[in-house]
Formats: sequence, C-alpha cells, structure tokens
Amino acid sequence: MSIEPFALRPRTEAGQRFFDGAVALKEPFAQRAAEADREGRFVADNVADLCASGVFGATAPAALGGGGLESFHDLGAGIFELGRACGSTAIASYMHLSATLLLSRVWAALEASGRADGAPHLREILTGVAEGREVIAVAVSEPGTLASVYPLTEALPTADGQHYVISGQKIFATMSPAASVLNATVRVVREGEPDRFAFALIRTQWEGVELIDDWDALGMRGSGSGQIRLRGVRVPAAHVAPGAPVRTLEGSALYNSLVANTGLIAAGLGIAQAARDLVAGSASDRKKAHDGRSDAERPTVQAAMGELDSRLWAAKAMTARSAIDVDDFYTRFSPRSAELEDLLQLAAATRATKVFVERTAVEVVDRALQLTGGGGFMSKHPIARLYRDVRAIPFMIPQAHQSLPFVGSVAFGRRPEPC
Amino acid sequence: MSIEPFALRPRTEAGQRFFDGAVALKEPFAQRAAEADREGRFVADNVADLCASGVFGATAPAALGGGGLESFHDLGAGIFELGRACGSTAIASYMHLSATLLLSRVWAALEASGRADGAPHLREILTGVAEGREVIAVAVSEPGTLASVYPLTEALPTADGQHYVISGQKIFATMSPAASVLNATVRVVREGEPDRFAFALIRTQWEGVELIDDWDALGMRGSGSGQIRLRGVRVPAAHVAPGAPVRTLEGSALYNSLVANTGLIAAGLGIAQAARDLVAGSASDRKKAHDGRSDAERPTVQAAMGELDSRLWAAKAMTARSAIDVDDFYTRFSPRSAELEDLLQLAAATRATKVFVERTAVEVVDRALQLTGGGGFMSKHPIARLYRDVRAIPFMIPQAHQSLPFVGSVAFGRRPEPC
Amino acid sequence: MSIEPFALRPRTEAGQRFFDGAVALKEPFAQRAAEADREGRFVADNVADLCASGVFGATAPAALGGGGLESFHDLGAGIFELGRACGSTAIASYMHLSATLLLSRVWAALEASGRADGAPHLREILTGVAEGREVIAVAVSEPGTLASVYPLTEALPTADGQHYVISGQKIFATMSPAASVLNATVRVVREGEPDRFAFALIRTQWEGVELIDDWDALGMRGSGSGQIRLRGVRVPAAHVAPGAPVRTLEGSALYNSLVANTGLIAAGLGIAQAARDLVAGSASDRKKAHDGRSDAERPTVQAAMGELDSRLWAAKAMTARSAIDVDDFYTRFSPRSAELEDLLQLAAATRATKVFVERTAVEVVDRALQLTGGGGFMSKHPIARLYRDVRAIPFMIPQAHQSLPFVGSVAFGRRPEPC
Amino acid sequence: MSIEPFALRPRTEAGQRFFDGAVALKEPFAQRAAEADREGRFVADNVADLCASGVFGATAPAALGGGGLESFHDLGAGIFELGRACGSTAIASYMHLSATLLLSRVWAALEASGRADGAPHLREILTGVAEGREVIAVAVSEPGTLASVYPLTEALPTADGQHYVISGQKIFATMSPAASVLNATVRVVREGEPDRFAFALIRTQWEGVELIDDWDALGMRGSGSGQIRLRGVRVPAAHVAPGAPVRTLEGSALYNSLVANTGLIAAGLGIAQAARDLVAGSASDRKKAHDGRSDAERPTVQAAMGELDSRLWAAKAMTARSAIDVDDFYTRFSPRSAELEDLLQLAAATRATKVFVERTAVEVVDRALQLTGGGGFMSKHPIARLYRDVRAIPFMIPQAHQSLPFVGSVAFGRRPEPC
Repeated sequence: MSIEPFALRPRTEAGQRFFDGAVALKEPFAQRAAEADREGRFVADNVADLCASGVFGATAPAALGGGGLESFHDLGAGIFELGRACGSTAIASYMHLSATLLLSRVWAALEASGRADGAPHLREILTGVAEGREVIAVAVSEPGTLASVYPLTEALPTADGQHYVISGQKIFATMSPAASVLNATVRVVREGEPDRFAFALIRTQWEGVELIDDWDALGMRGSGSGQIRLRGVRVPAAHVAPGAPVRTLEGSALYNSLVANTGLIAAGLGIAQAARDLVAGSASDRKKAHDGRSDAERPTVQAAMGELDSRLWAAKAMTARSAIDVDDFYTRFSPRSAELEDLLQLAAATRATKVFVERTAVEVVDRALQLTGGGGFMSKHPIARLYRDVRAIPFMIPQAHQSLPFVGSVAFGRRPEPC
Repeated sequence: MSIEPFALRPRTEAGQRFFDGAVALKEPFAQRAAEADREGRFVADNVADLCASGVFGATAPAALGGGGLESFHDLGAGIFELGRACGSTAIASYMHLSATLLLSRVWAALEASGRADGAPHLREILTGVAEGREVIAVAVSEPGTLASVYPLTEALPTADGQHYVISGQKIFATMSPAASVLNATVRVVREGEPDRFAFALIRTQWEGVELIDDWDALGMRGSGSGQIRLRGVRVPAAHVAPGAPVRTLEGSALYNSLVANTGLIAAGLGIAQAARDLVAGSASDRKKAHDGRSDAERPTVQAAMGELDSRLWAAKAMTARSAIDVDDFYTRFSPRSAELEDLLQLAAATRATKVFVERTAVEVVDRALQLTGGGGFMSKHPIARLYRDVRAIPFMIPQAHQSLPFVGSVAFGRRPEPC
Repeated sequence: MSIEPFALRPRTEAGQRFFDGAVALKEPFAQRAAEADREGRFVADNVADLCASGVFGATAPAALGGGGLESFHDLGAGIFELGRACGSTAIASYMHLSATLLLSRVWAALEASGRADGAPHLREILTGVAEGREVIAVAVSEPGTLASVYPLTEALPTADGQHYVISGQKIFATMSPAASVLNATVRVVREGEPDRFAFALIRTQWEGVELIDDWDALGMRGSGSGQIRLRGVRVPAAHVAPGAPVRTLEGSALYNSLVANTGLIAAGLGIAQAARDLVAGSASDRKKAHDGRSDAERPTVQAAMGELDSRLWAAKAMTARSAIDVDDFYTRFSPRSAELEDLLQLAAATRATKVFVERTAVEVVDRALQLTGGGGFMSKHPIARLYRDVRAIPFMIPQAHQSLPFVGSVAFGRRPEPC
Repeated sequence: MSIEPFALRPRTEAGQRFFDGAVALKEPFAQRAAEADREGRFVADNVADLCASGVFGATAPAALGGGGLESFHDLGAGIFELGRACGSTAIASYMHLSATLLLSRVWAALEASGRADGAPHLREILTGVAEGREVIAVAVSEPGTLASVYPLTEALPTADGQHYVISGQKIFATMSPAASVLNATVRVVREGEPDRFAFALIRTQWEGVELIDDWDALGMRGSGSGQIRLRGVRVPAAHVAPGAPVRTLEGSALYNSLVANTGLIAAGLGIAQAARDLVAGSASDRKKAHDGRSDAERPTVQAAMGELDSRLWAAKAMTARSAIDVDDFYTRFSPRSAELEDLLQLAAATRATKVFVERTAVEVVDRALQLTGGGGFMSKHPIARLYRDVRAIPFMIPQAHQSLPFVGSVAFGRRPEPC
C-alpha cells in the first residue's frame, strides 16, 4: 500500500530532515510516555534525545549550524509524528521549535540589514540551540489576564538604560524544567508612556528566576508546564524588544502570532491519530461471544469508524492548508510589508483552524475511547492517557471564546479585539 | 428564590425519606471524593455511612424493616444528589439499591402468592440490607461477551439438584469490596437443554469467590469496580433463578432491565450538575485584567452557559419522565401481565434515554471544563475528576452502539437484538 | 400496544376536551396541508372548522362559555396534534389560543376583584371567541427592532384621554387573514414620561388597519403571517394596557412571556413527529434490489432511527416538563405575587427549552429527510414541506442568540437583557 | 486585501482558463437563479452560455479542440464558482464536465495505445463537446436499487453482436433536458454469464429514449433532474463498455468513481459560500432599534459567524486536499496499474470527504439562515433557495449511510461493500 490519505508530509528538504529525525525517536518516546504520565514526571530523557539527535536544532538558522527549517507546515508534520508517540514531548517540542523559528527570522532580518553584530546574544542562543546545548521555553500565560496581549509581568528600565528589571509570575510554562532560556511576554513600563508589549529573553540561571516544579495536571503530565516566578530579574536591554502599547491590534504581533498555531494543533492531531490507530488496529481482536463477531465486522462500528476518520481527515487537511497559506504569506511578506487587512484575514484563518482542529482532536479521541469498549476506561490502557492529554490543546490561548468573535469580526469587516 | 427549574424531586414519601437521607450525607462524601480519586481507594467510609444511616435500606421492603422505596424516579432523585457529591459513591449506591429493589419485588410477589417461606435466603438478605448489615454488588460484565444477555460464567447443577457449581470471571463489579452478596448473571448449563440465562445470589465469603483488588481506572476510581473470579463456587439451588435460553428477547428480562437505567444515568447527571454548579458559581470570580471584566459579564460566556443549562435541563427532564413512565408501568403490570410489544416500547424508551443522557452528561462536563479556563486542567481542580468520572456512564451496558439499533428496530416494528 | 413513550397527553379535563377536539380535525387538516403549502394560501377552511367545532374557544373562560383550558401543558398537547397534521394550522392556532388564554387570565383577575364591569370589551371578545365568532391574532414583530420588548409602533393618547391613536407596522402577523382582533405590542408615548410597553386590542375592521396579503415564505406557507399597517387607528383607552417603560426587565412582562413558549414549540414538535412517523412507517417499504434488504433491516439505518427517536423524545420530555413547571407556578403565583428572581429562573427555563426543542425539531426533520432517500427531495413528498415548515420555529422570538445569554446571565446571578 | 484564506484556486493553466470562463458567467447566472427556482424551469439559457463560451468544452481533450482540463481540483474550483451563482447550474455542469473528463481519459488511453480509430463515436462526441454542440448527462440513479453498483436497466446483446437493446428507468438524470448524450449505467445480460456492470453512451434522439419533464423538487429546481425511460433503445456495441460482474468491488470501477466526488461537493460548497457571503455582507445593515446595535457589533453574532467560517474553511480545505490527492494518484497510476489496496484507501478518502463536506455545506447554510433573522424565511430572500438547494448534495450517491461503513471497513483492513 502506497497511499495514506491526508498524510502530513514535509514539503521542503529541511522539513524532511526534521521529520525523519522526529520519526526516528518515536519508538523510545512512546515507551516512556506511560511512566511519565503516571508519575507526572517531565520527559527530560526525551528532551535530551531531541537535543542530542539534532532535532531540536531544526529551526535554528543553517548559517549557525541549525537545520534551517522555515516551513510551518513541515514543523507541524514532524510534531504530529511526535504527538503520535508522546503528547507531552510534542507540545514541549513545539514550544522550543516555534520560539527558535521566530528568533531565527529575527536573526535573518538583522543579517540581511547588516545589524546582526548588535545581537550577539541571539547568535549565542541560536548557535546553542543548533548544537543542542540550549533549550527555549515560552512563558506567556499569567493568572488573571490574557497575557498574550496584556501581560502583567513588568519590565522596568534601569536608570542607565542598560537593563530591565523584570518581575511577575508565569504559569503553564511548558518545557521550563529543561529550558536554558525563557521567551517571556512582559510589559515595558516607562513613565509618561503607555506600557508596551514585549518579548524578553531570560536565562533561567539568572538570579531571581524561580522555576516551581508544581505541575500536576489532568493531562500532558510529562510536559513540565509549571509556574515561574520572576523577582527582579536583571536582563540586558538588548534581550527585550518593546513593541506597540499593550492590548493593541497591531501588525507585527499578528504576524508573529501566526507561527504559534500549526505546531500546537499538530501535537493535538498526533494524539488523535494515536487514538484512532489504537482503535482501528484492534477492532478485529474485539470479538464478542454472544454473536461471534468482532467489532470490525459490525456495520454500526464500521460506520462509527468512518465518522471518526472523516473528521480526523478534515482536521488534517485544514491544518496542512492553513500552514501552507502561512508559509506562502511569510515568503511574500515581512512584518513590515504585510498589510493589516491581510494579516487579519490570515490571523482569522489560523484562529478558526485552531478552534476546528482542537475540537476535532478532542472529539476523535472521545469517539475512539468509546469504540474501545470498557477496556479503554482502565488507567493502563494507553487511550486513557490520550483522552486526558488532548484536552490541553483547547486551553492554550487563544481559546475558542476569544478566537471566534475575532474571526467573526474580521468576516464583518470590523477590527477585532486582539487575542 | 423558590424555583429550581427541572429539579429532580421525590414524588413519594418513601422517596422523600431516601432523598433526605442522601442529601444529609453529601457534605462528608464531597470532602472524601478527591482523596479516594487520587489514591484509587474504594469509598468504604461512605458505604459504611450509607449503611449506618439507613439510606442503603431504602429499597428493602418496609415489611422487613426497609424503606419501602419502589419508585425508580425517586431512586434517581436521591442518586442524583449523591452524584453531585461523589460519582463513585453514587454509582456504587445505584448498584446496591437497584439490585435490592429488584429482589424486593421478587419478595413481594412471593409474599403475595404465599410462597415467601420457600425463600428464606431472600428474607435474610433483604432484612440484612434493611438493617445495614448486607450490601449487594451487581456482577454482570465479563470479558469478551455481552454478559447481560449471554454470560459465559457457567452454573452447573449438582447431581442431587440441591446446588449449582459456578465458575467464571466478572469484571467492572462495582462496589464488590464492600459486598456481602453478589447478584451475578450466569448461564445454567444442563445436558440436553439450551443454556439458560439466570441471576445467582452468591455470598462473597463463600469458598471459591475471589475479589481481585485491581481497580485502576480513568475515573470512578473510588467505586471499587474490580474483578471477581468464581472458581467452583457451590451455591444453593434456591439462589439461582433460571430464565429463558441465553440471548433470547424475552419479557421478564426486559421487564427487569427497566430498573437498571434511572439510577445509573442519575449518577452521571449528578456529576454533570456538579460541574455545572462549579462553573456557574465561579464565573463572577474569573476576572481578567486585560479588559477588566469577569466571565459572568461576557455575552459569549453567558451564551455558552446558556447552552450548557439548556442541554442539562433537557437531560434532567428526559430522565425524570422516563422514570415516571417506568414507575407507571410497574404499577400497572407485572412481569407476567406485561405484553412484549409494550415492554419493547418501554425498553426502547429507557435505552434511548440512557444514550441521550449519558452523552449530554459527558458534554456538559466537557463544556464546563472548557469554561473554567486553564485552572480546570489542574489535577487539584475538582472538575478534572468530574471530567474523568462522567465517562464511566457510556461504558455501562447497554452501550450506545447496542442501544440505538435496538431503538430503531422497535421504531420499525421489528424484533431487536437483545441487549 | 398500550404504551407510547414520552407521549404528550392532557392532564386536565378541559385539556382532554381540547385535545379530543384537535385530534378529531387532524384528518381533514392533513389533507389540505399540501395544497395550502403549494399555493401559499391561508388555511381559512381549517380556521373555520376550529371555530365551528369549539376548539378555538378552548382557552376562553368557562363562565363565558369557553372551554376553560388553563394548562399550558395541555394546550401544548393539543397543538402538538395539530402540528402533526398541518404546521401552519398549528402555529396559527397557538397564536389565537395563547392570546385568548392570557386575556382570560386578565378577565379572571378582574372578576375576582370585582372590576370586570369596567372591561366590557374583554367580555365581548372572550364571549365571541367562546362562540367561535372571534379570532385573535398576535401582532408583535416589527422590522428593525426586538418588538417584544421595544416596539416602535406608537400609541398616542388623545387629548381627552379616551382613545389612543396607533400607528406602525407589524410583520409575521400569523393568522391575521382570519383575525377579528389583533393583540399588538405598542409603545405608549406621553410627553414628559418614558415610553411604556403595552398590549393593545385592535379590531381588524377599524379604520386604518390594513392587512397586507403578501405572505410568501420558505415554510408555514398556509399560516397567513403577512404584514399589517396601522395608520392612525383610533382605539378606546380601555383596549390598551400600559405597563413598565420599554426595554425594562419587569415582572409582569416576564410572567406573561411564559405563556408564549409551549404552544409554539409544540407546533414544531408536531411537525418533527410527523416527519419521524413518515420515515419510521415506510422503512420496511424502502427495499433495494442490490442487496435485497429493506431499510428496516439495516443496522446502520436502525441506529440512525434510534438517534432520531432519542432526540425527539428528549425534546418532548423537556417540553412537557417545562409546561408543567409553568402550570404549577401559575397555580401558585399571580403576576403580583411572583418574585422577580423566581420569574427569571422560570423564564430562563422556558427560553432554554425553546432553544433546545426548536433545534431538535429542525434536526429531527433533517434526519428524517435524509433517511427517506431521494424520494424525500421531491416537492410532492410530504417531508419536503415539513423540512421547510419546521424552520419557522427558531425565527420566532426570542431567538437563540437572544435567549442563550439570558439563560447564562440568570445562571450567573445577573440581570439579563430583556428578550 | 490580497489574502483569501482557504480559497479554491486552479493549479494548472487549463484549470485557470476554465475557472476564468466560469467566473465570467456568474453574474447572469446569479440573476436567472431566482426565476428558474420559482418556476422549476431548467436553466437552459445558462447551459447555452456555457456551451457558447467554451466552458463546457473544458474537459474535452485539447487534441480534439477541448480545454484539456485534467485536474479534479481545478474542475472543483470552477464549479465552486458556478455554485456561488446558481446551484442548479453548478450541479448540472459538474455532471457534464465529469462525464466528459472520464471519456477524455478513455480516449487518451486509446490514443496512446493506437486504438483510437476503433472509437469514432468517442471522437465525435468529444469533438462535439469541445465545440459546444454536445452535452452529456449522467444517468445512474434508478428506483429501488443502488444503481451505481447494481443497475436494473438491462442491455441485451443482439444476436449479431453489433448492438445492445437497452431498457429501464433512470431518475435524477440531472441536465437531461439539454443532453445530446446520456452516460448511463446498465447491466449487460448474457445467458450463461453473470450480469456485468457497464456504462453505455446513448444519444437522446435515439428511438426509445423518453425524457420525462417531471422535475419538481425541494431544491435544485433548475437542474432538470427528471426521469428517463429507456424502451428497447438500440445502441451500437461500441457504445457499451462491459466491466466486472455487478456488485463487485473492483479496481477500475473504484478508479472511475474517484472522479465523481470533487465537482459535486464543490457545487454544494459554492452554495454554502453564497449563503455565508450573504450573511457576512449584511451584518452591518441588520440594526435593531432596541439597543441601537447592528449584528456586526454583537459578540454572540460575531462568534456565530466565526463558527460558520471555521467549518466552511475546514470543508474547503478537505475538498481541495482530497482532489489534489486524486490528481496525484491519476498522474501516477492508470486503472490498470493501480492496486486495489491503494484504490480502497483513496476511495475511502473521497467518500469520507463527501460525507464531511456535504454535511458541512448543509450546516453552513443552516447557520447562515439563522443569522439572517426573519427576513431569510421569506421566499424572495435568496438564502431560502440556498437552504433548499444545498440539501440535494447528501442525496447524491453514495449517501452517508453507504459511505461510512465503507470508510470504516477500509480502516479495519476489510473489503467493504461496494458503493
């Protein structure tokens, strides 16, 4: 058989290398998944393997020794494969790889304009990532605010302008136990100015950074998504890139937001695919004595399986297409050249994709769980973990109740609330 | 405020006593629920309280000191309340109380026909239940068969006809750690006859009964739903009531099957109600700094809450009505006087109700989980447990893929496959 | 067979009489339905039959010769039966009967307080209804506003205070071709006061009332739901009952709003039941040569039928229960004695019921249409009409997008926007 | 604005020409749609325009003067555009263009193997199509059988083997009023052999072909999908291509079945897009006086619009991807070289796509209808037609209840029932 409908396959060479590297690690990751889940233990071994094998350097610039992967589509294809083996590893990988990809784009722009010398820290981090020595965690969420547009974590400039002093609290900081660097959203507070949204690169070993190992969740229990406290962390000014005032609907933030989507939902889709494969592969074995038939022979079970595949394929097609649209857009436009109207359309498309795909992934696992019969309800059955893991995706921002009015506003030709 | 729309409230005096007793125990049960879940430990303390308080005697005959509860509707109303506090306790209680109710009906029929003296074991068990000394577990499910119509567990008559020797394996035997008696489905095997379906009353302390304390599930982790091995258990003949040949669509089995539904789905509805109340009660507290509003003020969240309530109310109305229909039917007809056509209609109605209500309960908890925001994804948040617990209901037989063709067959005027 | 699960059956004697009268007319109504639909012609013959048979007097006071029906539940049961025969007739009947019921309650209150003499027009109208000489249409909807809380139609008091002069435009005035009286929402405009919401009783033969026979709709084509223009209609002051300022959340308006629900959704449910019965009754006839089986024998079709029945039954249970809750409430409380908190709970329940039931009715017809195979797509097949008719219900106010935030607000303990 | 997310755009030059031609005709087609619908009149003018403009020659071989379009994806893109203007025209066009495309593939194979001289009728028909003189209708459906695998229409060979005599009845023969040629499924009946499935090319002016102009349907009222009676029609043997025995799961039939999907669902998607555009474009105009806001400003309406777009985009992505997968497969494999396992996978994918897309199209129009408010319920509102038209798609074979067990069987590694 040579046909796999709706397969997520890389379209670039760099993507193929990343994909092959990810696939090669699936076997051990799958074997470790149950234990990490049961103990709520961070998948440190998997991260070590990803670093050692070069997979975690995939999105670092080729010029700095990285894999040079630029396609979000291909990033998604590889993360999907990781998700089939271990959801926690997939989501953590997505965080690191997406963050790296964004920094690589910044680096490329600086290179192109001859300003790269002014960003030695970027060179250092990206080289480290390429060599498997650095791992980046994304620290956005905060309690009590939509921190992707309105962080409460403050960055105060020092009097000499050489540093910022950063304080605040981050939650759901996936991958933080292994991170050497945090890419954190903050608000730059300057007297007499509106507070500005910014990303700050913070080394985890710096004074004042406290990783709190308290992750104990319904699912994704191996993802290390604990809290981080930042208490007066002194960060060089070059590590902080202030943008527009907080809670502004603004082009470059939208542009960067597009990166976030594909890897995340690909992780969820991978989980859904794993659930699907479990139930499809075992239908012939689920025989019942009362009528002597296996589930594979029952028309109603066949139809239920058809429903499941139909939805999963729709979600895969939408994920792939959405990523290709973003790849095309990134090829044609920079943050500067992109027009806001276009960015809104594309942001609406990626947000709508997240809503559809995350719901479908949840639903597919739910249907698969139901099709397993009572055995799937046991803790030791792998689908019980998938059922809990997949629920993480809809909680990642933007959530559906934020995304849907955004999408509708764009459809109505109105400026949406940023999210 | 005196109005609670779609409330499940008892309609009989016996029901009100049971209901009040259940409500009085909710507080301690709710407090123990998290720990039982975390440790996967059977809710033995709750069962002890239910016995001591007389709640577990509710469905034993009044003449034997029991509560005399005969209404399935009212049984559901009380179990719903238990489900709001602890799903595991509710589902275990449903097993014991439903089984007792069925036995009480048998007892009443024997009394009415002057044959009660021939069933001293029934008097003993029901008196014990009334006095809180006996607990009944239902042991139906078996691996690899639909054991509600085609058990593989065999009961072989001894040569003198005084006993049966029973061997087989039961799974999902909820409440078994506390049970003094098992009500188990078996097949009576006699040479030269078709195998017959039967219920057997088996004391758990009898030789050959092995309770295997291996319950480790996705949810309902406190329900003690482990395995039971029966190895040559010698059971007095009076304890076994052979019926029609296995896998027959037959009146008295259908008649008895009606009892099973209400308590089970009421447990699921109670879980859903608990999730609903959690999210409704906390919406005003979930404030976000980015726009200064609480969830309670957001029209889209209000609408989502409206969707949730709309569905939950539909499920409560259907549960109540279905139970009232069954109560009415039981008042008018005995297993003997009921016609098969009517039984099929009513069985279709209860099976359709189970399908609708269990799905709705799952969906309500799912929606509530989504509305809690990220906090609900943490293990310590009570909704994380509800999310896992509620999934148990659809796994209880008959499952939707068995029930729906049954319902449709009846609609088409055809004899359905028994389930 | 004596069992019909989830049947809608009257609970009062007056209800039984009304029900029997409605059932007796179903046969001719069903026969006329196709033609009325094809020609978009008002079901005048049916209305004449309803008047002549006394069915249209059902909700007029017994003391004035009417049927004395007070139960919304029983009103719904009869309208459900009409809906099974002809959706247009059912919805038109609901308008007349509900309006009459409300006026009868007003009349009863006046009687009880000895003030009935001051309302000879009420006596006249209700007597006329009882005798089958008067028909009431409800005229609420207007273009460009939510006219159930904020009508734009103005009622200006004359200088002597003896009359109001009413001008405005009404749409979707179901039943208007046969109406002798309109019960119309208006705003009473007095200088120096806030505009007040009011119901006005307007005789259709009065000068300035223009019925525009322009009804040409997707469905309910026999319901005569055309436009009405009111141009300076002079109405005696006693015919207008000013209430609270427009767009106020207010007790007596909520109290009266409860009446509106049951009959409306019962009409929709009747349509759904008709579609269900069509497809269930013909499954054995839909045989296919390619496998020699009828639809009734196919497990997947049986399961689809089971899904349909499951939903329809849920909707019927919710409709009945909601109506019983309202009946109970009306028995216990008057508009004056009812507390706002209770009214909000009950209004939330009826609005949630409308949302659930109307969606389910649409979905049931949709599923039935699909199950009919290609034949159902032909204009001459009765289900094609049902598919169009049933869509009218969700358009009737309050619509889901208004109701759901209302329900959610109440759940959150907040005052909702009136709707 | 240059970005249109999830747009269906041609990928080949021939596709672009076809697409541009279709787009150029949208305006007049849209204008004629309402009248054709109201009168149930075949869209003869549109077909004339499509012939005259060369659009109907798109899939004829370039070597014979046709457009040379080979991509199903691009075929879908153009039909989608037609569907936005007039569903009836789109679905009729799909029939003609798909049939032509299949014949062109046969012709190309004959050419390649030097056997084209033996098929002068094919050259004649395809040249006629290229020149806009011939129109092909597909005549598959029959009453009482799944005629795509088990036609009852019989083709009996004459004694001399030079002709077949064909008799039977076809229904839903879309486009037949304008057709010069029918591509009909028949069973070839030879004594001593199993009946064989075949396609027969039948000229509509031949004796014994009777087109019955009785099309009067819920929707697609301009599509001319009436009945055809075939009474002893004498057809040259070369016009009939016997394949495998009827009701066989067989490679070349599966191979050819892949063609059928994209154009059909693209027509449905075009209808859905039209409904979506109507409601999105008018949201700002739907203002309500009671709160002074337009629908475009309401968060709940925005969210509902977001839901709609999310689903529509998923369906467009799945349609495009599925077509691309088929295009790729057709490039790599011929009916002969394709393996059955691969064909089954691809057939499962296209069937699952049809199920998902047709449901989504129906749902999107339904949601759009609801969002239009009461105005959409009027016959004159264009969405009322879309609501009826879109329902045609799920009735086209294979229907969901046939497709879903097919898809599930393939997932389980089993041979499905052919459909």
